[in-house]
Amino acid sequence: MKQRVGQYLVASMHAAGVNEIFGVPGDFNLAFLDDIVAHPSVKWIGNTNELNASYAADGYARVNGLGALVTTFGVGELSAVNGIAGAYAERVPVIAITGAPTRAVEKAGKYVHHSLGEGTFDDYRKMFTHITATQGYITPENATSEIPRLIQTAVDERRPVHIHLPIDVALTEIQVSQPFELQPTHSQDISDYVQQIAQRLETAKQPVILAGHEINSFHLQDELEKFVNQTHIPVAQLSLGKGAFNEENEHYLGIYDGEIAETHIKDYVNHSDLILTIGAKLTDSATAGFSHQFNMENVVTLNHKHLKINDVILNDVSLTNILEGLLKLNYCNTTKFPAYEKEQDFTLPLNDEPLSQQNYFTMIQSFIKPEDIIIAEQGSSFFGAYNLSLYRSNTFIGQPLWGSIGYTLPATLGTQIANPNRRNLLLIGDGSLQLTVQALSTMIRQQLKPVIFVINNDGYTVERLIHGMYEPYNDIQMWNYQALPAVFGGEQVAVHDALTTNDLQNIFQEIDTHNDRMHVVEVKMAIEDAPAKLRDIAQAFSSQNQ
Amino acid sequence: MKQRVGQYLVASMHAAGVNEIFGVPGDFNLAFLDDIVAHPSVKWIGNTNELNASYAADGYARVNGLGALVTTFGVGELSAVNGIAGAYAERVPVIAITGAPTRAVEKAGKYVHHSLGEGTFDDYRKMFTHITATQGYITPENATSEIPRLIQTAVDERRPVHIHLPIDVALTEIQVSQPFELQPTHSQDISDYVQQIAQRLETAKQPVILAGHEINSFHLQDELEKFVNQTHIPVAQLSLGKGAFNEENEHYLGIYDGEIAETHIKDYVNHSDLILTIGAKLTDSATAGFSHQFNMENVVTLNHKHLKINDVILNDVSLTNILEGLLKLNYCNTTKFPAYEKEQDFTLPLNDEPLSQQNYFTMIQSFIKPEDIIIAEQGSSFFGAYNLSLYRSNTFIGQPLWGSIGYTLPATLGTQIANPNRRNLLLIGDGSLQLTVQALSTMIRQQLKPVIFVINNDGYTVERLIHGMYEPYNDIQMWNYQALPAVFGGEQVAVHDALTTNDLQNIFQEIDTHNDRMHVVEVKMAIEDAPAKLRDIAQAFSSQNQ
Repeated sequence: MKQRVGQYLVASMHAAGVNEIFGVPGDFNLAFLDDIVAHPSVKWIGNTNELNASYAADGYARVNGLGALVTTFGVGELSAVNGIAGAYAERVPVIAITGAPTRAVEKAGKYVHHSLGEGTFDDYRKMFTHITATQGYITPENATSEIPRLIQTAVDERRPVHIHLPIDVALTEIQVSQPFELQPTHSQDISDYVQQIAQRLETAKQPVILAGHEINSFHLQDELEKFVNQTHIPVAQLSLGKGAFNEENEHYLGIYDGEIAETHIKDYVNHSDLILTIGAKLTDSATAGFSHQFNMENVVTLNHKHLKINDVILNDVSLTNILEGLLKLNYCNTTKFPAYEKEQDFTLPLNDEPLSQQNYFTMIQSFIKPEDIIIAEQGSSFFGAYNLSLYRSNTFIGQPLWGSIGYTLPATLGTQIANPNRRNLLLIGDGSLQLTVQALSTMIRQQLKPVIFVINNDGYTVERLIHGMYEPYNDIQMWNYQALPAVFGGEQVAVHDALTTNDLQNIFQEIDTHNDRMHVVEVKMAIEDAPAKLRDIAQAFSSQNQ
Repeated sequence: MKQRVGQYLVASMHAAGVNEIFGVPGDFNLAFLDDIVAHPSVKWIGNTNELNASYAADGYARVNGLGALVTTFGVGELSAVNGIAGAYAERVPVIAITGAPTRAVEKAGKYVHHSLGEGTFDDYRKMFTHITATQGYITPENATSEIPRLIQTAVDERRPVHIHLPIDVALTEIQVSQPFELQPTHSQDISDYVQQIAQRLETAKQPVILAGHEINSFHLQDELEKFVNQTHIPVAQLSLGKGAFNEENEHYLGIYDGEIAETHIKDYVNHSDLILTIGAKLTDSATAGFSHQFNMENVVTLNHKHLKINDVILNDVSLTNILEGLLKLNYCNTTKFPAYEKEQDFTLPLNDEPLSQQNYFTMIQSFIKPEDIIIAEQGSSFFGAYNLSLYRSNTFIGQPLWGSIGYTLPATLGTQIANPNRRNLLLIGDGSLQLTVQALSTMIRQQLKPVIFVINNDGYTVERLIHGMYEPYNDIQMWNYQALPAVFGGEQVAVHDALTTNDLQNIFQEIDTHNDRMHVVEVKMAIEDAPAKLRDIAQAFSSQNQ
């Protein structure tokens, strides 16, 4: 079969599960965009800028399993690097495609626009080597080998890859002998290691699992739960990994975040003599500044490409493979553990007092429905939301390792595009919203219907709590947030103003009644107010910077 | 004298001419921001995101001579790379400072937020090596040598430099024996080369100068004009370099942009037997796709660190040095040349017909006053504006080599901060404005008073003309542009709606009458309309991509 390289690339991504592609046009990618819009089952989602497009592709990939982004050479791809680096850090598979000048222009070293004007063309590609799992320069000769390798690597590593696509290459016809198909992850026998884990479990008095974000990246929640149901080992989640384990499962302990965890969880984990960390990284934000008190010698690390037990490290086994191995483990835990306390059930008195952060998150708890996707911005929203009790069928998305403020608004564009039928709840703050606000326009353009809660407390609350509570650099310009949707062409968007618990309760009812449209809720709170978890972690971050 | 490293860095930048510093707070830079806000003569300009901050620092540097930017580790600095790369390409000196985790955290390889979660800390620094003239990792031991070296390099090369500042280093007290002072550029004797130029000039029948952007970068307009007044060699400007030569000078020919130049200019330059390109690069956008027809053997290249005459190349002489050398040249041209035709004088009949691109730019010509700074977005605006006739005291800013759409709105924040007393005219389009719109909020916050013309023609016009006139990827969401200032807290901003020449003329009068506030003018034009130059160059770009 004859196909243009561009057609082959689009078809291959589609075969790997990509149904929507995000990006921004530029003259070095336009002819390739023709192949995207012409594909009967792939939709082009034009974004207002490339950073937003990269965040959207990340959010999309977290729900869909794989995302893709098309930018132009230089100006486009470089605007997306923050989003791609975030996908790298948090293990999200995004195919980042750069439409580039022709090979002839490159070979001649021409001073073309979007180049550095020095006749070099490899500078940006080299920059991407630090933040992508692999990179490829596509030619007509290597297209049918490189494109499969690149897509497969993104999926296998759950990390972004970078594709440099000279625009003449995209337009060149090649012979395609067979369409691309994703290969199943290579499976290897790790029974020796599983046996060692079994031995450690046999002598353990108080084993525990710490589940982390890689479970979400690899969509292995079901496998983890099956393992837990077989072995009865209780599970705590890291905040970097919320959603990895079904919080309705009887073996769930709650969130473990080091010294600031609830006492019974903290005590149980800290005193465990065998801690299986599965797809989990003990980062500063997940551990309140590395305040975990358990003995690291009791830890068995079961991460993607990093299995560590008894000082033996295995670097070439996938997390999927590890879960497959674990499921063959024959063991049943009998140690008692503290039951998960779903503390935030809605019992608030409604009144006309100003809303507090605490009341706000208590009420959000009551608002969550099964199937909701909850996206929480790395700020007050995330630190308030990661203690929320979720249904098994919820999805929770945050970005606590990378922690790029502004991520969640475009990410919600992506998550909602990935599945328009699930209700998306975005929890964000004013400072964060300002960074990437134009993504709201794209949501409106795409007729999406998320529910967006914007905390307006006049500034960068996280930063205030870490350093400079009243310093001018933590102030922001006051916007009329409720007027934003109409400015962006969203006259049909319902906007709401919440000052009190009474307001918020009424708004919840309106949202439930009018679930056929987007809702934007401005939630006003006091400048000094913050979720308790945020106060604690901000203190830890502040100490870390001394 | 004892100073914290942070204090020393701020004082050193101030000594080099930096009075305002742009950026976004983040926990790894907060303690350093204290030293900025505490400095009596340096002002912190908080931005809505880092890309906008980098563009603002670039615009500031173009007017002020040096700019500075502070971001946080990872998420912040990576969002700024597009702006920094643009400053690199177009030779704009910006000091890009990253507030980073402490040396102790780095040494321990901790999994901290904003890292890639792999224990490495040098990934982002390495990325900056491709887009900055030099880079430095500041320690208490090297601060008084590295900081001077870095600032001096930015100024000498007129390019960005990257400073990695661990936050514990910023807080460390050091002994400062003497405050930083910029050193004059090293001057060397190039009289041998100047003599060769003189010899070439003696035999030349029709010499010409092509002036380019490096003249603007090095602020050498006066030196160039002095040289021209001495030698009477006529000067054409590249669009990448508009502003390099006084358009009121009797030796000015006009803009040379290859085959699309006005016939008399094209003929004169193409038939010249000695072309001195001074600080000029023959890029695709400057030459309508490399359509210049002169003989490259007749070119003497006089660029910063690249002097080329008779196949001899000198790579270590600054542009300042070259101009110093040229001023010693003894020669006077007698060849007649076609006088510059100031074609766009305002002679339009005013009426209620829809505005055309041609009428719009003709009217903008009439609106320009001496001392205005004109900033033209790389799109319809730049391609329409670079033929405008300027007063000697105007400043013209575009970004035709880097060509990152969205650049000019934040750049205008920077140019206007650099000198609040000069009127700034921003010419921008709807598609570009959407990328970086939140910069408008910062302008309002800073109480700036630019005049902003936004062409609303419903999409990416440049892209339409290159490829895909009616393709959906070149469409954008329609916004209510006139409502934007109020949403961003700018109720005092005057907004205007221009549909006809009559409208625009009335608006000009209102702007002149009410020059105490910001004005935003929405200029509606037909979707297919475009400046003639843009049509021609888009055609060239399209061919280049085959």
